[in-house]
Amino acid sequence: MSIVTEKLAAINLGLGTFADALRRAGAEVEEIDWRPPGDGDPRLAALLAELTSDDSEPDGPGSRIDRGNGEAVSRIVGAKPMLVDVALHAREIWPERGRCLLHAGAPIAWEAMCGPMQGAAIGAVLYEGWAKTPDEAERLLASGAIPFSPCHHSGAVGPMAGIISPSMPLFVVRNEDRGNFAYTNVNEGIGKVLRFGANDASVVERLKWIQTVLAPALKAALRRIEGGISLKAIQSQALLMGDEVHSRNSAATLLFLNAISVPLLESGIDPRAAAETLRFIGANSQFFLNLSMVSSKVTMDAAHGVAGSSVVTAIARNGVTVGIRVSGLGEHWSEAPADMPVGLFFPGFKQEDANRDLGDSAITETAGFGGFSLAASPALVQLVGGTPEAATGFSREMYEITLAQNPALSLPALDFKGAPTGIDIRKVVDTGIRPVVTTGIAHKVAGIGQIGAGIVRVPMGCFVGALKALAASLGIA
Amino acid sequence: MSIVTEKLAAINLGLGTFADALRRAGAEVEEIDWRPPGDGDPRLAALLAELTSDDSEPDGPGSRIDRGNGEAVSRIVGAKPMLVDVALHAREIWPERGRCLLHAGAPIAWEAMCGPMQGAAIGAVLYEGWAKTPDEAERLLASGAIPFSPCHHSGAVGPMAGIISPSMPLFVVRNEDRGNFAYTNVNEGIGKVLRFGANDASVVERLKWIQTVLAPALKAALRRIEGGISLKAIQSQALLMGDEVHSRNSAATLLFLNAISVPLLESGIDPRAAAETLRFIGANSQFFLNLSMVSSKVTMDAAHGVAGSSVVTAIARNGVTVGIRVSGLGEHWSEAPADMPVGLFFPGFKQEDANRDLGDSAITETAGFGGFSLAASPALVQLVGGTPEAATGFSREMYEITLAQNPALSLPALDFKGAPTGIDIRKVVDTGIRPVVTTGIAHKVAGIGQIGAGIVRVPMGCFVGALKALAASLGIA
Repeated sequence: MSIVTEKLAAINLGLGTFADALRRAGAEVEEIDWRPPGDGDPRLAALLAELTSDDSEPDGPGSRIDRGNGEAVSRIVGAKPMLVDVALHAREIWPERGRCLLHAGAPIAWEAMCGPMQGAAIGAVLYEGWAKTPDEAERLLASGAIPFSPCHHSGAVGPMAGIISPSMPLFVVRNEDRGNFAYTNVNEGIGKVLRFGANDASVVERLKWIQTVLAPALKAALRRIEGGISLKAIQSQALLMGDEVHSRNSAATLLFLNAISVPLLESGIDPRAAAETLRFIGANSQFFLNLSMVSSKVTMDAAHGVAGSSVVTAIARNGVTVGIRVSGLGEHWSEAPADMPVGLFFPGFKQEDANRDLGDSAITETAGFGGFSLAASPALVQLVGGTPEAATGFSREMYEITLAQNPALSLPALDFKGAPTGIDIRKVVDTGIRPVVTTGIAHKVAGIGQIGAGIVRVPMGCFVGALKALAASLGIA
Repeated sequence: MSIVTEKLAAINLGLGTFADALRRAGAEVEEIDWRPPGDGDPRLAALLAELTSDDSEPDGPGSRIDRGNGEAVSRIVGAKPMLVDVALHAREIWPERGRCLLHAGAPIAWEAMCGPMQGAAIGAVLYEGWAKTPDEAERLLASGAIPFSPCHHSGAVGPMAGIISPSMPLFVVRNEDRGNFAYTNVNEGIGKVLRFGANDASVVERLKWIQTVLAPALKAALRRIEGGISLKAIQSQALLMGDEVHSRNSAATLLFLNAISVPLLESGIDPRAAAETLRFIGANSQFFLNLSMVSSKVTMDAAHGVAGSSVVTAIARNGVTVGIRVSGLGEHWSEAPADMPVGLFFPGFKQEDANRDLGDSAITETAGFGGFSLAASPALVQLVGGTPEAATGFSREMYEITLAQNPALSLPALDFKGAPTGIDIRKVVDTGIRPVVTTGIAHKVAGIGQIGAGIVRVPMGCFVGALKALAASLGIA
């Protein structure tokens, strides 16, 4: 949709390909990010109108969705995620699962998995001792003997490949507001680590150390903290300290370290284990990432399952598709092919090496962090590219597709406005604005690891699919 | 100086009183913050012209000042302040001083001291055991038996009242670039503390604990850190994490805690002392203030004493006057009556309770932190009042009166521009822009303590006086 003047200058509203064609013809083109309601599909626009509240129909589908969203948002804002325990092995939490591997994103079979997820699964098999060599592990996984299941189906989240195996320790988080629980594994650091698909001996050895030294130490420390550690308080403080608490957790990690260090010392554990634990956490500025994720997960799970609600309760990427879950749609996943993150790469790596968008960590965006709180983290642009002004712009844009400003999550650069929280799939389809996600970037080949960090958008297909499913669930064709 | 249109609208350049008169006459007045060069004094304007470089006079006073400033700025930018030791008692550093008390700001006698400085001196006498009761301590101090001396005369700095007594432990900081040393005492926390003039039993008890538990613990930890802790690296990181490293040190304190905790655990000290030490630091977000001050002091001392330089190397307030020291003026203090800080007060206190501007902590501003880096700390406005936009505005303004952008001190909100560093007294007098300082606020009555935090400007008289002294030192009448 363009207005072409006599001088062959144009203002291009949406649809980049048309602009590209004009440019090739030598025209100057100014692009404006505009899309017709319903993503340009007139049937979708009509559906959107039907799902929008209307004063003449107080019991119409739009009003029912609004009421559901009101309840969902109040559960998000009211959540009180507390880190209450460390389970020394995942199998304590899920004794029925046996030799299963959990993974990031929507359900996916071994054959369809991306390189880094396969690499991480191989590493997990070696870590568990189910195979002696990577080849043997690969054959075992290809045989179908080890079932796979999404983390999200077990109340859990895992960054990047998101592989959780039965011997891994888990953080246990309880939402004091509604009593629900969520789980995640322990962050390994950056670079050559399992979650980015690396699986050599150093990776497995680090996982063993986490299991045998760090997890028992943190468990002992947590036992001394009445009521647990408020993850929301840490997230909230960290937003005032330059983190968006997804791709930057420098302040949050230090705040966690401060919360844990004295209880750790007073727990009676071996002082060498205490020192090793503090050294590991203090040297890994992304240590808090998994805790920010699980805090977001327990928050969004509380808002999940509200009849009629169009609020997005999970965005999760298995490295092939991006799947979203919507409060009013139960266990339904709405999926679309994953985009390629764009950002900055570690020396020696480039965009062509990158895997598609990967990991459960976009759960933080659904709770108002990450790309939605990018205004809080001008320093992050040093890692992912762009400018502080653009970072603030992303947050501003996200208010267009969300239902609330979370009062507990102040963005200083926006005059302490609450972070945009509670994505409404109707708003995404209506405005054409896709949620923005900050993310790590994995090498597409199994076994290599992290190669950069950047920014990515959630595919529009997820929201269009979810909107149709929500309409169907409300009896609208 | 106003341009009045027919509609009785005016643009007012400086001199607020004229604008007020116009407003009373019903005019619309737009004020522009402009002042004539030389602060409105024609003789001063002429002096300023003489002290400004001129291509026709490559050896004229202006060029000599510029050359001195070039050297001073390169020493500031090149400084490498390392925390290398804790002296268990100040008397180890200054054995010749005997029963002396050091204090903040320019030299001042007991009778002339403000309430909080007298209160702190009384507390120090009780802490040293030189008297048994506050009355007895006061009589001792009034008798003149205890000499006073500015911290700055001993290569030291102290926040607020800045009282340092012989038994207090000191942080020892070395500038790796030039080998000079500086010293400061240990931060006690906020509220009812000695530096804000409080002196009851709890205050003295805390000082004793710092002396007997915390200081030996930190000394033992530092012994395990080869080369010491880089304070500049912590300050630089903290600017990316919402601190301006004067009135907000939340991130810097956590970064320090992270640097010290493992060496502390591995130092072999009593685990209970280690836990108490970590608890005290972790509970006091201003713990790093004194370290930021001493880092700035060792930096600015390195730039002090450069012939001809018009760079301000210290801003220090004794609660009655503000004194500045200038690199090319040796031991000269240029003083003017201190302003009243404006800010937010703790519940139960108000502006009328406030003491005048107090403390050596404005040394941080001379090194580019505090008010000069306010753009880094939008969250600080929650403590001192104002808006994040105004905070950024203060930093922008300070570029007008400084000589350099410090490349090690990035301000994210200004696209990572280096913090404005190296105040030139000529620029202050020329522009009429007074340096802005973030500050704690003490109750004006001895014995009460901190009652708020705010912002204050350095009096113009300090700069006018220094400019005249510099001219005299260069042989200009």
